[in-house]
Amino acid sequence: MTDAKYDVLGIGNAIFDVLVQTDEGFLARHGMTKGGMALIDEARAAAIYKEMGPATEMSGGSGANTIVGLANFGARTAFIGKVKNDQIGSLYTHDIRAAGAAFETRAAEGGPATGCCYILVTPDGERTMNTYLGAAQDLNPADIDDAQIAASRIVYLEGYLWDPKNAKEAFVKAAHIAHSAGRQVALTLSDSFCVDRYRDEFLDLMRKRTVDLVFANETELHSLYQTSDFEGALKQFRTDAKLGVVTRSEKGCVVAGNDGITAVPAFPIERLVDTTGAGDLFAAGFLFGLVRNAGYEAAGRLGALAAAEVIQHIGARPQVSLKELAGQNGLPV
Amino acid sequence: MTDAKYDVLGIGNAIFDVLVQTDEGFLARHGMTKGGMALIDEARAAAIYKEMGPATEMSGGSGANTIVGLANFGARTAFIGKVKNDQIGSLYTHDIRAAGAAFETRAAEGGPATGCCYILVTPDGERTMNTYLGAAQDLNPADIDDAQIAASRIVYLEGYLWDPKNAKEAFVKAAHIAHSAGRQVALTLSDSFCVDRYRDEFLDLMRKRTVDLVFANETELHSLYQTSDFEGALKQFRTDAKLGVVTRSEKGCVVAGNDGITAVPAFPIERLVDTTGAGDLFAAGFLFGLVRNAGYEAAGRLGALAAAEVIQHIGARPQVSLKELAGQNGLPV
Repeated sequence: MTDAKYDVLGIGNAIFDVLVQTDEGFLARHGMTKGGMALIDEARAAAIYKEMGPATEMSGGSGANTIVGLANFGARTAFIGKVKNDQIGSLYTHDIRAAGAAFETRAAEGGPATGCCYILVTPDGERTMNTYLGAAQDLNPADIDDAQIAASRIVYLEGYLWDPKNAKEAFVKAAHIAHSAGRQVALTLSDSFCVDRYRDEFLDLMRKRTVDLVFANETELHSLYQTSDFEGALKQFRTDAKLGVVTRSEKGCVVAGNDGITAVPAFPIERLVDTTGAGDLFAAGFLFGLVRNAGYEAAGRLGALAAAEVIQHIGARPQVSLKELAGQNGLPV
Repeated sequence: MTDAKYDVLGIGNAIFDVLVQTDEGFLARHGMTKGGMALIDEARAAAIYKEMGPATEMSGGSGANTIVGLANFGARTAFIGKVKNDQIGSLYTHDIRAAGAAFETRAAEGGPATGCCYILVTPDGERTMNTYLGAAQDLNPADIDDAQIAASRIVYLEGYLWDPKNAKEAFVKAAHIAHSAGRQVALTLSDSFCVDRYRDEFLDLMRKRTVDLVFANETELHSLYQTSDFEGALKQFRTDAKLGVVTRSEKGCVVAGNDGITAVPAFPIERLVDTTGAGDLFAAGFLFGLVRNAGYEAAGRLGALAAAEVIQHIGARPQVSLKELAGQNGLPV
């Protein structure tokens, strides 16, 4: 195993976020499931957007948010994801490179526009997402740069990649290259409805050790094992995943390894504004802890810190230096 | 004079804001004048953007920000400004309509892209703007809808309109239509460098009563009369403008009419984050006060309230209901 050029390489849907604060009624009127991520087509995207209030835009995408968080902590990162060469694709490309991540995936010349996620943030801070995949639909195995994967200490994959038609092939290809190079592969289960769509495949990835580390939140874990019994689900998760990390919102997180369970509390916040990116930024902090060989306890605290930062403002990308924030809180940087 | 369909119609450069928080060094390295608005060409826009960190985007433009603020207070509003029919133009069009303003200006089919402003926000909250006018360059007298102007109680114009080559004709045309219909015309001086470019023309607009109400901040007032003597400049301003309003940041504002001077204090804030839009939102609140016939004192307080809201977060558009905020503070709504 040669020295890694990147600490973490992420593969995910490249999605531009269009965020508005709204009321519960909007979700009800449009038949949205609060807190979830629904895939929508262009017509539904247009219909939803037309009814939305004035928005704030910023680059998003679950895996990309994690990579940007890692870069913000000071990790060496890269991202693979598909935009189109349109105006929004240019904004997207700028933002991830400006964050410090290598991003060389060829933009689509034709086909659908760069993907957008229409995010409704209710007064309780919960976010409800409607994703038009757009160009992200076309991510395929040819977009995987073998050398780049082999040069990354951890390859991080989002479960949402199971939605576009060829991305799962890209996903599995990347996982195999990584393992052949002696690298680690991490997966986030992304969303409870996503888990519901691909439950057996996700369990297969874990059991066959295609992935080494799995992130899930409590709802996703319950969906994975179709149970509302947290302890029972956690027990199964420990058996299936080589290393599992379960986030539990204000209850903190649980790291489940072969050698036992480590529970880490959440980080205190002043005011919950928008949960968009909470899980993504938790993963960023946790992976940063692993990259710094800081141990599960410190990794969990770094994850909690990054999640706490991102939920106190609109949008899924950090607004301060996480490196400085970690330093101020006596955490590894 | 028939009943007005709109309380305020704004004419301005339709500009999409790309905002980042950065350090003072960035301004120095790029030779930017802190706190100002510089016009830039496409090459310079690309060079600046390339060096900027990950950004947040939202619709902007001085006059449009004021109109959105007014709509947010509950006023009936319309906006005239030029975008291109590109992705950013679509976001722009959505946002102003979603705010509640009528916006029917035909988007450009060809020519430059929708205009963008690259805004650097330093740790002291000051914003430094670099504007690529893009499609806003093409606003012209044909974009002025005579009936819409005549149906608006107040027509609000931004001084920045003197920059695009045919917009000033549109500006003067609109002012004449408004006055023929017995309406009021308001102007903001926009920026001290803008005043420096068009000093004589702005004074002419005031002295010939092409405009009835003029907004200026302290720096713009000093630039207008090429003096650092505030009281002396204010005296001249009272003579030249039918009604003048001078904003003085944390010192509040001064309303200068024929019947005397009214000073109104600033609204207290918890934390200055980003001054982008402070003057625009002050104008929104003040004009809303006039529309509600609330008197200069209350109008000034409404302006101060709206400015205080907008400088406590990133971006030039309100993030809460100004109508509710005004009600909570015992101001007219």
